[in-house]
Amino acid sequence: MPEYKAPLRDMRFLIDHVFDFHTSYANLGAHDASPDMISAILEEGAKFCENVLAPLNRSGDEEGCHFDNGVVTTPTGFKQAFAQYVEGGWHGLAADPAYGGQGLPSSLGLVISEMVGSSNTSWGMYPGLTHGAMSAIHAHGTAEQKDTYLSKLTAGQWTGTMCLTEAHCGTDLGIIKTRAVPRADGSYAITGSKIFISAGEHDLSDNIIHLVLAKLPDAPAGTKGISLFIVPKFLPDAAGEAGERNGVSCGSIEHKMGIKASATCVLNFDAATGYLIGEPNKGLNCMFTMMNHARLGTGMQGLCLGEASFQGAIKYANDRLQMRALTGAKAPQKPADPIIVHPDVRRMLLTMKAFNEGNRALTYFTAQMLDAAHLSSDAEARREAEDLLAFLTPICKAFMTDTGLEVTNHGMQVFGGHGFIREWGMEQLVRDCRIAPIYEGTNGIQALDLLGRKVLGSQGKLLRGFTKIVHKFCAANADHPQLGSFVAQLNGLNQQWGDLTMKVGMAAMKNPDEVGAASVDYLMYSGYIILGYLWLRMALVAQAQLEAGEGEADFLKGKLATCEFYFKRLLPRTSTHQAAIEAGSDCLMNLPAEAFAL
Amino acid sequence: MPEYKAPLRDMRFLIDHVFDFHTSYANLGAHDASPDMISAILEEGAKFCENVLAPLNRSGDEEGCHFDNGVVTTPTGFKQAFAQYVEGGWHGLAADPAYGGQGLPSSLGLVISEMVGSSNTSWGMYPGLTHGAMSAIHAHGTAEQKDTYLSKLTAGQWTGTMCLTEAHCGTDLGIIKTRAVPRADGSYAITGSKIFISAGEHDLSDNIIHLVLAKLPDAPAGTKGISLFIVPKFLPDAAGEAGERNGVSCGSIEHKMGIKASATCVLNFDAATGYLIGEPNKGLNCMFTMMNHARLGTGMQGLCLGEASFQGAIKYANDRLQMRALTGAKAPQKPADPIIVHPDVRRMLLTMKAFNEGNRALTYFTAQMLDAAHLSSDAEARREAEDLLAFLTPICKAFMTDTGLEVTNHGMQVFGGHGFIREWGMEQLVRDCRIAPIYEGTNGIQALDLLGRKVLGSQGKLLRGFTKIVHKFCAANADHPQLGSFVAQLNGLNQQWGDLTMKVGMAAMKNPDEVGAASVDYLMYSGYIILGYLWLRMALVAQAQLEAGEGEADFLKGKLATCEFYFKRLLPRTSTHQAAIEAGSDCLMNLPAEAFAL
Repeated sequence: MPEYKAPLRDMRFLIDHVFDFHTSYANLGAHDASPDMISAILEEGAKFCENVLAPLNRSGDEEGCHFDNGVVTTPTGFKQAFAQYVEGGWHGLAADPAYGGQGLPSSLGLVISEMVGSSNTSWGMYPGLTHGAMSAIHAHGTAEQKDTYLSKLTAGQWTGTMCLTEAHCGTDLGIIKTRAVPRADGSYAITGSKIFISAGEHDLSDNIIHLVLAKLPDAPAGTKGISLFIVPKFLPDAAGEAGERNGVSCGSIEHKMGIKASATCVLNFDAATGYLIGEPNKGLNCMFTMMNHARLGTGMQGLCLGEASFQGAIKYANDRLQMRALTGAKAPQKPADPIIVHPDVRRMLLTMKAFNEGNRALTYFTAQMLDAAHLSSDAEARREAEDLLAFLTPICKAFMTDTGLEVTNHGMQVFGGHGFIREWGMEQLVRDCRIAPIYEGTNGIQALDLLGRKVLGSQGKLLRGFTKIVHKFCAANADHPQLGSFVAQLNGLNQQWGDLTMKVGMAAMKNPDEVGAASVDYLMYSGYIILGYLWLRMALVAQAQLEAGEGEADFLKGKLATCEFYFKRLLPRTSTHQAAIEAGSDCLMNLPAEAFAL
Repeated sequence: MPEYKAPLRDMRFLIDHVFDFHTSYANLGAHDASPDMISAILEEGAKFCENVLAPLNRSGDEEGCHFDNGVVTTPTGFKQAFAQYVEGGWHGLAADPAYGGQGLPSSLGLVISEMVGSSNTSWGMYPGLTHGAMSAIHAHGTAEQKDTYLSKLTAGQWTGTMCLTEAHCGTDLGIIKTRAVPRADGSYAITGSKIFISAGEHDLSDNIIHLVLAKLPDAPAGTKGISLFIVPKFLPDAAGEAGERNGVSCGSIEHKMGIKASATCVLNFDAATGYLIGEPNKGLNCMFTMMNHARLGTGMQGLCLGEASFQGAIKYANDRLQMRALTGAKAPQKPADPIIVHPDVRRMLLTMKAFNEGNRALTYFTAQMLDAAHLSSDAEARREAEDLLAFLTPICKAFMTDTGLEVTNHGMQVFGGHGFIREWGMEQLVRDCRIAPIYEGTNGIQALDLLGRKVLGSQGKLLRGFTKIVHKFCAANADHPQLGSFVAQLNGLNQQWGDLTMKVGMAAMKNPDEVGAASVDYLMYSGYIILGYLWLRMALVAQAQLEAGEGEADFLKGKLATCEFYFKRLLPRTSTHQAAIEAGSDCLMNLPAEAFAL
């Protein structure tokens, strides 16, 4: 199992220098997030994740969750770790102080989430889902609902879920069958069956608060007839404690490829008592509050597992002796050279490093938008941040998980045959990562959301909101003595991005299939350009620090070398995506479905 | 679990029309392989694989192999299936009639191997390794060794292994530690420990014949001091039957990500009796006889698992109802449209189809070279076929496994969340496939073999042997009315291939690291061009048949549509690989190893 160390140096580089969280926190009035506080949080968060969560990752995978007659037991140590997490104040870090949270900015919560996900992705699902439920109740609940649920959820006494998927529908929520029948007391009787419910049943908390999509008897067809309900496992009693058992039960848990320590449940609702949250038939809007949060969190799983894989791979590449360098022995005193001398091993390591650090920068950049959208006192700034968030969320989800999967596969490949053996822990990272491009809306759905809903749906406005930033950045740095050629490369792609979007938009007006035909390649194309922008931002800071004699020279040179690698070896992938986008839909759609046969 | 049906229609299209096996068999004097015989073999092979092997695939994965104090038990049904396989004559199909084989061409053996691998990759490892051992003994054994071992191996009474890897070396066989000490009776005492030995111990056969790399006491250092030994589990007695137990034992089996029903063993040799095969210190040459065979077989695993995944995905894409087509409902009577109406689902399905059918064509093309190299009476034709084989083998191994992994991942993605659940069988195909880019020489090693040893090592001769074929093909079809533009695209790439190779060769003369820096991208670049050539060959036949009113129109139109898809959507990936190749080694090597740190 690769030992996990929180990448604090890179995190601090981004927080202190590239994105200057300190100034934004000051501007947003988040005065509790002082530099000292941030530093303490980073260090203590790292300790907790390294020492408590990481040691449970392999054992959790081997042990998995146990199901026995409706009762789900998490792997050894999970319950205690959750108690420690809550006790350490990590669970309520970014939660509302009115309900016992510490009220720190969301961006800081995400920094800690990365450490959690790298050290133990399965474990991280339990608090992760709870945070999603908290944000939905916070945004859409009544004062009474907030009072009843948020303190308990913030305190980790209770946990939360989101219940969307049914056996016959995942993407297509318009056709859900779960029904909500109004009762005289204002509550609803919820009946139906939900599948793939993460943390749907477990032994970490006293109560589980399910947020459930269901249809009212008079609901219109499709997505406009879905409502959201709070369905607690135990109904709160008069004192606000977990009381009578509600009519919801876990029918089974899934046997999965990965994240085996995360309980994925079938939940059966049998006239369970539910409470409407938000307006009737507007449940999908409420759910999106959770889903945007969850999509960013899922995107981060690509980063988290990629980082864990990279840490294993660099250690192994320095330790494992095999063959001599093509340019002559580099460790002549040893029986062979460490494999890090081989160009192809470096190609894999640099690909991992470039994606991980780029994806981390994308996370922090997006997290700053999240802070601004939540905390800014300026309505125009909030709106701008929300637009950027809407644009970036599907990219974070899909690009970071697809590249994260590539990264974890490279990490396994660096280990050769040992990568395939469970004991080394590298294959678990691939298995754990493989769900991320699927759940929380498949990456195909994210791509449709990006191109169809966000970009074309706004007549290009949401795209222009980002390309303008890149355009200004390129104009300001066009003459940079060391990085000017990369700036020019980025600027060219940034212009091409707009042109290509226009082309797809024109084609889509004639044939809506053009959107679906281009979407996944368009999302990846966009992701590569965005990472190019972020890599240049990092490189500019690194170059300036090196020239000023600040910072750690090795680290900063590593940034510059990885930026160069990214521009020379990874960013050219845009050309393949461009060709695929321009290929149009005919070559996908002309073949009749029957021709896909043996 | 996706139900497996042997893709006989495509197989026949290749055998009868594209590659015309019948004429080559006649020319090579392989008269037993008559059209009727081939047809019967295809149909009976399909039945065996569909009905006997495929049903054991999921259960084999769940059950795995059991280890108990040196004894390895394969999953339920494996032993019986092996007996049926042997009884049906499948094991000896392409083996020498002098030792009980049927003497059919190797290409036919590979056609059946594909069906075996698609229906049950883990199970296929047992006969697969045995075939490798048989070819090494056949090529390098003494008459007595052949008499002793080949009949038993052909009859499946005994099985074989290849024992190369040790804990500290996989790629770097020059540093193996296993020792062979000569004894007075001409045998050797073999002592050492081997790991990752597929089929190293199991319950399918009476005896296991290990082919073991070891060093003689006076051996020169490195790969020039390695010898190959036959080390039977039970020493043959005077009657040629399995007699006294030899000093080789299985210390444990590995717990792996996939191919769980294939026993991967630690084998301990404790002064075990071994018999030198081939010349002293020339063991690696002998082993290469097995390894080339094994590399083609491993490459085919990408095809096999990709095909199984495709079969699952097309069924699911036609069955699963989710959302409406962007162009309006296609199945208005149903609650939603089958997902095959969505362009992005088709993109995944067509990618799968294009790689599978392209990789099958590559396999058959290579198999024809194998036949010619074995059977041609013309020395020049044999030499040409051997050169092409040498060139194609690393590409088959690496390109087909990397694309096969992509294909199985697409298949899983088509299933959405259900793809991640073990019960559906799609994730097993990904796990089973993930080893293929690693073992039998990692794909990185294949790429070095291709670019360094084969292409640059022959001063480009081996490459020109192939580009000439493509050049002639393009010249002959330049004016094709329907396919001419694709011919031009291929022709341009074929020329660029030579130019790019020259450029890398020049750079490598100054800096050997340029080979390693370019190699993996070079191999993939080459693979895409080769598949382009093969797709056009298939498309030309399909177009001609359609015009002549021959064959099944739907099938032939599917070929043409998939060819178009390949040229528009997949072949452009060459541009990204080209950019990476041209990026050179500096951006990989400039960073000091210490800079890969947290």
